[in-house]
Amino acid sequence: MLAGHPIAAEAPFDTPELGEPYLLTPGPLTTSYAVKQAMLRDWGSWDGDFRAMTAEMRRRLLALTGDKNDEFDCIPMQGSGTFAVEAMLGSFLPRDSKTLVLVNGAYGQRIAQTLNYLGRAHTVIDKGDYMPPRGTEVAAALDADPAITHVIIVHCETSSGILNPVHEISETVYGKGRKLLIDSMSAFGAISLDVNEIRYEAMVSSANKCIEGVPGFGFIIARKSELEAAKGRSHSLSLDVHAQWAHLIKTGQWRYTPPTHVVAAFLVALRQHEVEGGVAGRGARYANNRDVMVAGMRELGFETLLKDHWLSPIIVTFFNPAHPDFSFDRFYELMKDKGFIIYPGKLTVVDSFRVGCIGRMDEHVMRRVVKAAGESLREMGVDTAAPPAAAIAERAKLAA
Amino acid sequence: MLAGHPIAAEAPFDTPELGEPYLLTPGPLTTSYAVKQAMLRDWGSWDGDFRAMTAEMRRRLLALTGDKNDEFDCIPMQGSGTFAVEAMLGSFLPRDSKTLVLVNGAYGQRIAQTLNYLGRAHTVIDKGDYMPPRGTEVAAALDADPAITHVIIVHCETSSGILNPVHEISETVYGKGRKLLIDSMSAFGAISLDVNEIRYEAMVSSANKCIEGVPGFGFIIARKSELEAAKGRSHSLSLDVHAQWAHLIKTGQWRYTPPTHVVAAFLVALRQHEVEGGVAGRGARYANNRDVMVAGMRELGFETLLKDHWLSPIIVTFFNPAHPDFSFDRFYELMKDKGFIIYPGKLTVVDSFRVGCIGRMDEHVMRRVVKAAGESLREMGVDTAAPPAAAIAERAKLAA
Ligand SMILES: Cc1ncc(COP(=O)(O)O)c(C=O)c1O
Ligand SMILES: Cc1ncc(COP(=O)(O)O)c(C=O)c1O
Repeated sequence: MLAGHPIAAEAPFDTPELGEPYLLTPGPLTTSYAVKQAMLRDWGSWDGDFRAMTAEMRRRLLALTGDKNDEFDCIPMQGSGTFAVEAMLGSFLPRDSKTLVLVNGAYGQRIAQTLNYLGRAHTVIDKGDYMPPRGTEVAAALDADPAITHVIIVHCETSSGILNPVHEISETVYGKGRKLLIDSMSAFGAISLDVNEIRYEAMVSSANKCIEGVPGFGFIIARKSELEAAKGRSHSLSLDVHAQWAHLIKTGQWRYTPPTHVVAAFLVALRQHEVEGGVAGRGARYANNRDVMVAGMRELGFETLLKDHWLSPIIVTFFNPAHPDFSFDRFYELMKDKGFIIYPGKLTVVDSFRVGCIGRMDEHVMRRVVKAAGESLREMGVDTAAPPAAAIAERAKLAA
Repeated sequence: MLAGHPIAAEAPFDTPELGEPYLLTPGPLTTSYAVKQAMLRDWGSWDGDFRAMTAEMRRRLLALTGDKNDEFDCIPMQGSGTFAVEAMLGSFLPRDSKTLVLVNGAYGQRIAQTLNYLGRAHTVIDKGDYMPPRGTEVAAALDADPAITHVIIVHCETSSGILNPVHEISETVYGKGRKLLIDSMSAFGAISLDVNEIRYEAMVSSANKCIEGVPGFGFIIARKSELEAAKGRSHSLSLDVHAQWAHLIKTGQWRYTPPTHVVAAFLVALRQHEVEGGVAGRGARYANNRDVMVAGMRELGFETLLKDHWLSPIIVTFFNPAHPDFSFDRFYELMKDKGFIIYPGKLTVVDSFRVGCIGRMDEHVMRRVVKAAGESLREMGVDTAAPPAAAIAERAKLAA
């Protein structure tokens, strides 16, 4: 039996579907009922009503970047977030470019893998599972290799939950006369990427992250000069950002069939995002979610992978307790029975799991998460008073 | 004011949303309310419940091909239908292949365009806006160029509505020892592509066509031997069919975030498709929709582009009446006011419009479409008793 959402949960986080578990995951995540209800009708993708929805969506997303001088534009792209990342790479990296990829987890690795598919020259700074890339080492790499034209970084590396220092990296990159691209998939909408504060050429995110829509498309926000330069450059018809942009400008329509229902849902999500206070408001709720959840989990004896300074308000990695009776699969099922879906870890060296802080949830929900975790441990007969050995060994490596 | 669906429409085509127009388009189309209601909850994409949904979906789609010997598999692909077509081309056409593309409309042209992006050798038989490719000319082309390894055809070329002779082409292609790929986007689920009757290596369709789901992904059904051979071949990480397949087999999950809500809706659509009698039942309703609609439109004086033999039960192209007071934009708005969204034509030579026969609609709805068209003509002051001059000149070119 699933516990799930109560019929009358904490307003405004009242998703009335009894028995549906909360998704403590990095997306798809728990969305509001109003977002889902927007999918209860069909839209003609060629029709003026839908074109107006597309226009509103692009306008609202662009507004989140603080673009005052009309220097940027927003281009939605069908497919999952990875499709939008690939579209950005194929469109904004000239065929003769060389890219420095800053890797500290699975999503950075995926960018390097994509560049292999595309046959675009690149080099990597790999910091392992969770160490942050720093400005000084990036500066040294750029000095050492004048062929490097672009740098790409993952904003929140969702595989560990680390919030990477994009501001510091941006200063370095432009200080050295290079260009920056950002994968802000899991951060945009909750953590500022204001173009007046952080310089970049293009960034990418998707519908089912911090804006709290449902999955089905991503979007690219890019400098118009870069969009113009991207003409004829893409390796893929479907993922050609310039072609999508040109078609949007000419017709107001997506180039190929858009996920109409997902777009309708996203528009409601964007309006709710504004009501909550935009990026600042959304980010504050998530930060509070994280603080309440992490404090509670630590009280239960769980240890976070990262020190507080690097913890994002998006998702938090915990070490598996070293106790012999702890099994992630069992813990997962016990948590699910209590109405909470958690996420497996993505570290290569130690066993871990992740708990998301994003989605239609607030601190009351997070307290229930902690309670459920404590009960699940007891049901497994796991005593977490003894700190996990693996954790201690690992963490010793991580600077404050 | 929109007329739209009545509260109590013809069972089982009772979509209760008052004021929502019917979509007489080639997709996104009008779906059942149950299909949309399936989107009212959030699913964890890593969770076992969702994996089971993915498995059921793949099993049901595969069953529609009549694959008895477990020779084929079904791979969903995020993005619109075009993404799935590109994925098929990039994955199943070896880098040293040469493809004969049979073109008689926009979607055939798009295939050739995609091969340009991919840098895969190809040649085209272009039949213009609506003439069907025939076995004899394909045989001649294959005889003339032994370098050709593959042929690709569009099943229903949605830009004119013509139902291409895939059976005839398949016999020719395999008779000449080559391989066939099919874009069955707008036909699959309503027109048979039984692997026991028509030989092919792979085909592609999408969620929002004849299965009557909502848009957000496509799917590829391919021979397993071709899937195995596709390893390492794709030009794109996101669109790599082999990699998606391998991941599905290993984990039961999509490689990257699936459009969970769209998948949930599609599963309901697949179950309703079975209840209606599968491909035969669905095809019969659409054929009846077409017959009722075409007969009524002809009574009003409208002329179809194609002779009856080539009319698909998917979508029908009509010539714009030659009357000086007829304007498509006006006709579109008048029809929309009456609750019906029609589609612009896609012919290069003459002005036309299209009316779809697919989606959650039956002959009662089609009668109302015809009535609305008649009223709209009267409101425009257009008398269609006089046959359209352009039409007559054009049609003279088309053999019976
Ligand atoms: C930082 C980052 N990049 C890329 C992705 C890939 O997105 P998707 O799974 O939608 O393809 C994710 C997904 O969580 C992510 O967090
Ligand atoms: C035959 C055919 N191929 C390809 C497509 C492209 O599909 P999408 O618009 O979903 O990209 C369509 C769309 O109507 C089609 O009818």
